[in-house]
Amino acid sequence: MGLFKEEGLVYKPVEEVDLGPTSHEIYLRANVKAPRMAGLLVKIFAWFLESRIFGTLLLYILKRNNLIHKLITNAELEMHPLYVPLHPFEDLKEQEVKCIDFDLSPPEQVQQAVNCFPNSPKDIFGGIKPSFHWWTILDYAKVYSSGKLTPRMVAERFIAAVHECSNPPLQMSFFINYNVEDILKQASESTLRYERGQAISILDGILIAIKDEIDCCPYPTTGGTKWLHKVRPCTNDACCVKRLRLCGAILVGKTNMHELGSGTSGINPHYGVTRNPYDIKKISGGSSSGSAAVVAAGLCPVALGVDGGGSVRMPAALCGVIGFKPTFGRIPHSGVLPLNWTVGMVGILAGTIEDAFIVYAAMNGRLPSDQPTSAVKPKLYFPLLNSTKPISDIKLAKYAAWFDDCSDEIKICCSKAIDKLQKHRGWKIVEVTIPEIEVMRLAHYSTIGSECSTSLSSHLEKLNPGELGWDTRVALSVYSSFSSKEYIKAQKIRNRQMQFHMKIFAQADVIVSPTTGVTAYPIKDDALQTGELDYINGAALVRYSIAGNFLGLPAVTVPVGYDKLGLPIGLQFMGRPWSEPTLIHIASAMQALCMPGYRKPEVFYNLLNED
Amino acid sequence: MGLFKEEGLVYKPVEEVDLGPTSHEIYLRANVKAPRMAGLLVKIFAWFLESRIFGTLLLYILKRNNLIHKLITNAELEMHPLYVPLHPFEDLKEQEVKCIDFDLSPPEQVQQAVNCFPNSPKDIFGGIKPSFHWWTILDYAKVYSSGKLTPRMVAERFIAAVHECSNPPLQMSFFINYNVEDILKQASESTLRYERGQAISILDGILIAIKDEIDCCPYPTTGGTKWLHKVRPCTNDACCVKRLRLCGAILVGKTNMHELGSGTSGINPHYGVTRNPYDIKKISGGSSSGSAAVVAAGLCPVALGVDGGGSVRMPAALCGVIGFKPTFGRIPHSGVLPLNWTVGMVGILAGTIEDAFIVYAAMNGRLPSDQPTSAVKPKLYFPLLNSTKPISDIKLAKYAAWFDDCSDEIKICCSKAIDKLQKHRGWKIVEVTIPEIEVMRLAHYSTIGSECSTSLSSHLEKLNPGELGWDTRVALSVYSSFSSKEYIKAQKIRNRQMQFHMKIFAQADVIVSPTTGVTAYPIKDDALQTGELDYINGAALVRYSIAGNFLGLPAVTVPVGYDKLGLPIGLQFMGRPWSEPTLIHIASAMQALCMPGYRKPEVFYNLLNED
Repeated sequence: MGLFKEEGLVYKPVEEVDLGPTSHEIYLRANVKAPRMAGLLVKIFAWFLESRIFGTLLLYILKRNNLIHKLITNAELEMHPLYVPLHPFEDLKEQEVKCIDFDLSPPEQVQQAVNCFPNSPKDIFGGIKPSFHWWTILDYAKVYSSGKLTPRMVAERFIAAVHECSNPPLQMSFFINYNVEDILKQASESTLRYERGQAISILDGILIAIKDEIDCCPYPTTGGTKWLHKVRPCTNDACCVKRLRLCGAILVGKTNMHELGSGTSGINPHYGVTRNPYDIKKISGGSSSGSAAVVAAGLCPVALGVDGGGSVRMPAALCGVIGFKPTFGRIPHSGVLPLNWTVGMVGILAGTIEDAFIVYAAMNGRLPSDQPTSAVKPKLYFPLLNSTKPISDIKLAKYAAWFDDCSDEIKICCSKAIDKLQKHRGWKIVEVTIPEIEVMRLAHYSTIGSECSTSLSSHLEKLNPGELGWDTRVALSVYSSFSSKEYIKAQKIRNRQMQFHMKIFAQADVIVSPTTGVTAYPIKDDALQTGELDYINGAALVRYSIAGNFLGLPAVTVPVGYDKLGLPIGLQFMGRPWSEPTLIHIASAMQALCMPGYRKPEVFYNLLNED
Repeated sequence: MGLFKEEGLVYKPVEEVDLGPTSHEIYLRANVKAPRMAGLLVKIFAWFLESRIFGTLLLYILKRNNLIHKLITNAELEMHPLYVPLHPFEDLKEQEVKCIDFDLSPPEQVQQAVNCFPNSPKDIFGGIKPSFHWWTILDYAKVYSSGKLTPRMVAERFIAAVHECSNPPLQMSFFINYNVEDILKQASESTLRYERGQAISILDGILIAIKDEIDCCPYPTTGGTKWLHKVRPCTNDACCVKRLRLCGAILVGKTNMHELGSGTSGINPHYGVTRNPYDIKKISGGSSSGSAAVVAAGLCPVALGVDGGGSVRMPAALCGVIGFKPTFGRIPHSGVLPLNWTVGMVGILAGTIEDAFIVYAAMNGRLPSDQPTSAVKPKLYFPLLNSTKPISDIKLAKYAAWFDDCSDEIKICCSKAIDKLQKHRGWKIVEVTIPEIEVMRLAHYSTIGSECSTSLSSHLEKLNPGELGWDTRVALSVYSSFSSKEYIKAQKIRNRQMQFHMKIFAQADVIVSPTTGVTAYPIKDDALQTGELDYINGAALVRYSIAGNFLGLPAVTVPVGYDKLGLPIGLQFMGRPWSEPTLIHIASAMQALCMPGYRKPEVFYNLLNED
């Protein structure tokens, strides 16, 4: 009906799609039809998009060229929409786990996690003594307990380091807000507890940075904007932050992020570009840019991020640290900006998987009361990292065409890492085909865009557009362009992909892939003031992330090497719902095998050593 | 942002809204800003709406004038969206019920229902001998068992009657399709079973008509269109139809309906206007127009409809019969046109509530496998209508401002009916305020529109618009105009209303109201070819229906009297989720009290008597 007829794809029934290695399903490369834009160009583009008539036409052309009309809007799909990727809890019978009493306090849960660790710290890294490793929570706890250093001393070093790297020549732009007084107050209290022998948990005195998308007193929650905190005051800690505070952690401030999480570069025109500690001329990735970078730079052993479209895992990979995003619904979501509530979830950035596990243990607990809950109360299992019997018979699903859709260096490096797992652990590769990955990326984009635009609309109505970055204005114009039909069809695709992925998980324990298709790319000067639109690099960055968000699957990225410029490369494992213990086991094995090759970042602050 | 700024309503938190009788919440009358249109006017309107530029502008103005922008699009709402009104099963501890084994066959379940009936047929109607009542399933079963009449004889009478009323002067347009050969074949088989003493159940040989939105072999499923069956062939019985067939019922054809269920008048330009048996110059209401009218006309004791926005209850009320719509998820939905899958559900039209109960018993069973299922298996309870102890202490929630927003005759008639319940049963009225009912109507409209437009889009792309009725073209233009933001906000309103209604149900057993705001209105000649747009009458018709669909609540309408033109008036009871047994008890009590006043329709075929 109407002038603009366009045929949509007729999707064949799920059961007719071959997921085997010889499937005839075609791997569709993201054929992004949009040139890189920055500076004046992005301004003009934003103006056009915001004009009612040109904008409508331009958006139509953009959607058509990027196959949204063909693959989503006009597509023929039979299944029901799946609106929320909340999985009924499944008792998976994983290897080498222990069941945790569900009514423990956060410090008790942390202790249960620590009890899963090998006795000797050196055993944590698979019995090796690495040339470089980030200082772990256990390292901090040891010096605190011994009295060699106090949390107060470490906090002071932290403040000096942040001060140094915030100013020229570094200008790392790690934080949007940090309050010296508040940090020192927490540190002094922690110090007192250690002096009295009353440390609350192993997290007592541990510095943790929080992405500025998560409520954490006494800071406003800017979401990377100049205005959101004015219309939505932060009045309380987010639930996950509250749980960390209950463990004695020192919350050291709010990390920089891509404005509203609407991009993947971490270039924020209001608060500066978060630079990559491995090369300050390169991006850190986003949107949890600051959280990844502070961990890489040694300022905190762990930081929190929010992952709505790879936003924890991408910067983690680009900054060479662990990025861990649990199953949708695992970590309480209340007190996180409701920018995208069916795809976004709290994630952890850490130097080691063991540290990520401790923080996961602290934050995990009951399901959030503000989200739809599954009727069956999930059991909580922790991985026994101290087991003398390593987990065996792990099957890694690999989709070759997708796996290889990255730079040669990433492909080679990630393949080598998997070879190590096969050689040293005897794990098996299962070759599979995961169909319609590009369709899923577009469906996820329609979803995250629709949700973001809905959640902000009442604020945006009243806002002077000049308060937004130019790239964000473009993003919001596209976000608000989706019809209810596009949204609902995207949810049908969600259901379809869920069925595909569950079939894959019937054959394998995890899906393995690179974390990103490119390593950290250069920060160009023209992007500093306006932000940049680089959908080609953007698509390469998110390529492997989407199922984690759209389907709510747990996933972890582990640093497995470097490209020839010395920039980190991450390998991702994505598990079935509620399979965090297995993922942690796998990540721990991978980390131990790659750690001998870990390199220290150029910008690195050693808060523990005296040198 | 942009030229068209418009302030949205800021909704206050649910807990701050007073639901008591003295609440300051204002009752917003549906202020529909659209004149009645038919004939050339509706054609011009459709052309304008379908043009890309005028259409966009016109839709914008329509949405603004009808407060959609203010109350939905730009509204500020904090809660999560609720996408599907699927209620976790609750074991309600209702009065005078028995628990039914969940693994019974449909005939066994029917027998269980019949076992709940009083021994003497006259006791069914509260001990009275009514001057008029529709012949019940038990009446048919009695003559079949006695051999006085056979299903074959009744079927022949039915065919003759349908033939007569399809032609001038009546032209009732009850059916879209009925196949004489198929009906007689079923009837002969049933007759044989009775002759052999092998009747399957009390439904054996009972004539049941099916709305043409539900798959039923050997008929195409037109959905009231000229084309849908060509692109979506009917290959199997819908699950609910299959269950009726298993009980021995004779499926007599596909009843007329408003095209695509997109209107409430039952005026179908392709298959004719379904006329009201009480006055053939009046509409029958829709969209399940034919199903209501065939029952009223005595052609079938029961018929199936689908209720997406009151589409079973409205025509039932206008035609003076029972309309019963169970809780969302109770009746399997597979094989029903997926026009609106979160608000539409199969409902029953019947002469008496007891007959509706029998058919409910036949169709009920397991939850449909094609819909999201609640994790807890619902128990099935049946009301003990033969209990010597009538149910007591029933509390009827009444919202006066809303209750009274109807014609004076309806208000008086419905009030009198409730007075009878108070007087004869001692039941109590609880005065309440149900806030934001008009907001819910708009949110439901955005939802049903978005779902219908999504489900049909791939067909509509290929369709010559000339194959659609003009009023349907207008509806589809509006349906496809909703943004993802509007859809998601509508789902937030769904969550908000669910919370309001659950609070009401904490104080009362059912919500009582008229079923419609007007009685059957005249069929005007100008509407016959083009259909008509009459949003003012439309809003009055759906006024009391929406929560049943949007929140998935069970509801039943009982005929309680007539206006001065002799047109029927219905009273509606809406219950908490899964409370069908109580609803049936209540409807049975109401029916017994009103039945002495029941009048025979002008068009009435007596298939049982010899006269």
